[in-house]
Amino acid sequence: MPCYPNIRSIPGIVDHVIVSIPAESAMALLDDCAVKGVRSVHFFTAGFSESGETEKAELERAMLEKAREGGFRIIGPNCVGLFIPRTRLVNTAQASLEPGPVAFISQSGGHASNVPVYGKPRGLRFSKVVSYGNGLDVDESELLDYLSHDPETEIIAAYIEGVKDGRRFRTALQSAASTKPVVIYKGGTTEAGQRAAHGHTASLTSSVAVFDALCRQMGTIQVNDIEELVDVLVALRFAKPIPQGTGVAVIGGGGGPSVLASDEMEKAGLNMPKLPEEAREELKQVLSVAGSILANPIDASNLATHEAIVATMRIVSKLPDIHMLIYHLGFHPISSWGGGRFSSSSFLKPTIEGIKQVHRISGKPVLMVLRPGLNLEDMKEFLAAQEAFVSAGLPVFHSLHQAAGAMSRVIAWNRKRQG
Amino acid sequence: MPCYPNIRSIPGIVDHVIVSIPAESAMALLDDCAVKGVRSVHFFTAGFSESGETEKAELERAMLEKAREGGFRIIGPNCVGLFIPRTRLVNTAQASLEPGPVAFISQSGGHASNVPVYGKPRGLRFSKVVSYGNGLDVDESELLDYLSHDPETEIIAAYIEGVKDGRRFRTALQSAASTKPVVIYKGGTTEAGQRAAHGHTASLTSSVAVFDALCRQMGTIQVNDIEELVDVLVALRFAKPIPQGTGVAVIGGGGGPSVLASDEMEKAGLNMPKLPEEAREELKQVLSVAGSILANPIDASNLATHEAIVATMRIVSKLPDIHMLIYHLGFHPISSWGGGRFSSSSFLKPTIEGIKQVHRISGKPVLMVLRPGLNLEDMKEFLAAQEAFVSAGLPVFHSLHQAAGAMSRVIAWNRKRQG
Repeated sequence: MPCYPNIRSIPGIVDHVIVSIPAESAMALLDDCAVKGVRSVHFFTAGFSESGETEKAELERAMLEKAREGGFRIIGPNCVGLFIPRTRLVNTAQASLEPGPVAFISQSGGHASNVPVYGKPRGLRFSKVVSYGNGLDVDESELLDYLSHDPETEIIAAYIEGVKDGRRFRTALQSAASTKPVVIYKGGTTEAGQRAAHGHTASLTSSVAVFDALCRQMGTIQVNDIEELVDVLVALRFAKPIPQGTGVAVIGGGGGPSVLASDEMEKAGLNMPKLPEEAREELKQVLSVAGSILANPIDASNLATHEAIVATMRIVSKLPDIHMLIYHLGFHPISSWGGGRFSSSSFLKPTIEGIKQVHRISGKPVLMVLRPGLNLEDMKEFLAAQEAFVSAGLPVFHSLHQAAGAMSRVIAWNRKRQG
Repeated sequence: MPCYPNIRSIPGIVDHVIVSIPAESAMALLDDCAVKGVRSVHFFTAGFSESGETEKAELERAMLEKAREGGFRIIGPNCVGLFIPRTRLVNTAQASLEPGPVAFISQSGGHASNVPVYGKPRGLRFSKVVSYGNGLDVDESELLDYLSHDPETEIIAAYIEGVKDGRRFRTALQSAASTKPVVIYKGGTTEAGQRAAHGHTASLTSSVAVFDALCRQMGTIQVNDIEELVDVLVALRFAKPIPQGTGVAVIGGGGGPSVLASDEMEKAGLNMPKLPEEAREELKQVLSVAGSILANPIDASNLATHEAIVATMRIVSKLPDIHMLIYHLGFHPISSWGGGRFSSSSFLKPTIEGIKQVHRISGKPVLMVLRPGLNLEDMKEFLAAQEAFVSAGLPVFHSLHQAAGAMSRVIAWNRKRQG
C-alpha cells in the first residue's frame, strides 16, 4: 500500500481520515485535514480528556474548534470509529460483512466489536456500527437522530456511558424510539461503574434514576450487559410476530430443567398456562407416559424425535392462551441428544421444516434454547445445530434464563407502545 | 456379561440392585430382593406417584412396606441413583472418575449428571452423587445427615424440589451446615415451578418463604440454578482462603468491560476500593498511560503480557482494602489476546507461576474470568487456557457476573458463620 508523509501529500480527494498517531501531533494533522478538505476524521488515538489531565482536556477542546473552522467532523477521540458492512469499512476481524437491519452506537470500542461478534452466530447483521468514544463532536444524540431516519436501519441499539446534553438527548431519543425499537445498555449504573466510565470516556453520568426514568418514558428497552443486548436484538429480529401476551409453552427434555424453565419464565414475568385436558389427551397419543410430564412444561424423553417435537408443537400452538413456544434440550449435550441424531441433517431438516410450518399456521414464534458445548466435540455439534436454526430464521438462545428475559422485555415494550 | 432371569438366580451375594423394568413388575422383584438379602435397591423405573395417578402412588407405598419387611433400602424411584467415583459405580458418561471432596444430592436425575459434567472442566471432583428422585425411602434428610459425617466429603450441595418432613429436614440441615458448607438449589420457587416439581418427583413444596427462611437460619448458601451452584462450588473449593472482606481489584483489558466489571461487582454486593496515589504511581512504572485506566478496575492494553499482569497483581495485592483479585479478558477471544500469545505455554506458564506466587505471598485469592469461545478455534484456545489454570488449582469463572455472584454469596455465608 502506498504511504504518504502527511494528508496534504495524498493525491485526489480524501473523505475520511483514521488517526492512529500520538495525541501530541493531533493539531498539526487537523490543520492538514482542513487544507485537504476532508469531511470526517476518526481519532483512534486516546489520551485526551479521559486521562483526567487538564492539559489533555484542553487539547481536545482546541481540536473541536479546529474542526468547526475547517468544516469537518470528528468521531471520537478514543474509539474504533466506523464499521459499515455495505461499504466494507471494517474495524473488526470477526464480524460478518453481510449488511443487515441492526444499527449499534457505542461509547466503548470493545463493545462496538463485541456486539457484532457475539451477534454473528445468532444471525444478527448490521447496517452501521459507530464507536464514538469521548463523543467530542459526533455524539449519541446526533447518531440517534441520524439512525431514526436511516432507511437501512430497522432496530437501534446503543451502549452509552454518559450524556453531555440531556435536553438534546431527550429529543433525539424520543424521535428515535417513536419510529424504531431502541435498545439501550447504560454502562456505569453503580458508583464504581461511574468512576470507571469517567476514566474510560470522560463520561459524567447524571443520576442513574433520571436516565432510567427518561428511557422508560421514551419507550426504550433497557438491558444491563452485552449478552442481554444481543438476546433482545435476537428477540426483536427473529421472534416474530411479537407475542400479544405472555403465555409460553415450554417443550423439551428433563424433569429438573422443566422445573428450572418454569421458575425462569415466571420470574421473568412470563406465564405458563396449564394445559387443558383435551390437549393432554392429544399429547398422550404422541408421547409416552412413564417418565413424562404432560403438563406445561412438557417433558418427555421421546421429545428427541422430530415427529414428536413437531406433533407436540402443533397441539400446543393451537391453544389460545399460548403466545409463544420454547423448545429446549435441558443441559443435554447436543451430541448425545436423541441418541446422537440431533445435529444430523436427517433430524434437523424435518424438525426445522416442521417448526416453520407450526409458526406459519399458528402465527406464534417458536424459540430454540441450545446450550453451548463444554468440550470441542459438543461445541462442534452445537455450532452446527445453531447455524441450521439461525439460517432458517429462528431465534436461538443459549439458556432458558436468557430467552425468558429477552422475550419479557420485548413484550412489555410492545404492549406499552401499543398503549 | 452374564444375564439371569431374576435376582434369585444370581449366584453369590448381591449388595445393590439397579431396576429398569416396568413399574408393574416392581413388587415381584422386591420379593426376590428380600429372599436374596440385598441391601439396597435403586429404581431407575419411573411412573409412580409423580404420575399423579392414585393407583401408582399406592403401589409406591406398598413398595416401601415391602422394603421395611425385607430389611433393605430403596433409592428413588424415578431417579438415576448412585455415582461414586471411588468405587467406580458410574451412571453418567461425561463426568470425571477422579474422586474429590464435593458431595451432591439431587431429586433430579438430569441435574445429578449436569453438576458433575459442568463442574468437571472447572476442577470439581466428587465423593458421592446421589439422585434420589421421589425420595420414597432414602430422602434428603437422611442423605444430609450421612454426608455431614462422611469423611470423604468437605462440601455438600443439594438440589431439592420438596421436603416431606420439615422437622427432620431442619435437624439434618442444622447438623450438616454446622460442620460443612451446604449449598442448596431449590427447584420450584414459583407457582409454575412448583407444579412442574410435583409432576416431576411428586414433590409438594410448602411455602417458598418458609424454605428460604429455614435455609438462611441454618446458614446455608442458596442458589437459583445449576450454573450458580457450580460457580459457588468452584468458589468454595478454589478461591481460598475465603476473603475476609468484599474489596476486589479487577485487572484486565477493555474500557467497556471495566465499566461492566464495576457495575457487576457493586450490584453483587462487592466493593471496588479506589487505588491510593502511591499504588497508581507504582502502576505507571509497569503500564502505559494512553488508553489505560490506572484506577480500579485497572484497564491497560499491555495487561496481555505475563510480566505486566503479575507486576500489577503484586502491586494491588499489597493494599489492605483489597481482599481478592480478578483477572479478565473482557470479551476478547483468547486466541487474539496478547497477539495470540495467551494460550501458548510461554505465556500461560509464567503467568500461572506469577499468580501462584502473588497468592502465596498475599494470602488473597486470584480469580480468572475466561469467556468460552464462540467458534471452534476460540473454543479450543479457551479449553486449553481453562485447563491450565484449573490444573494449577485456580478458580475459573466464565463471566464477571458469575464470579461476582459466587464470591459475594460465599463471603456473606462465611461472615455469618464467623458471627
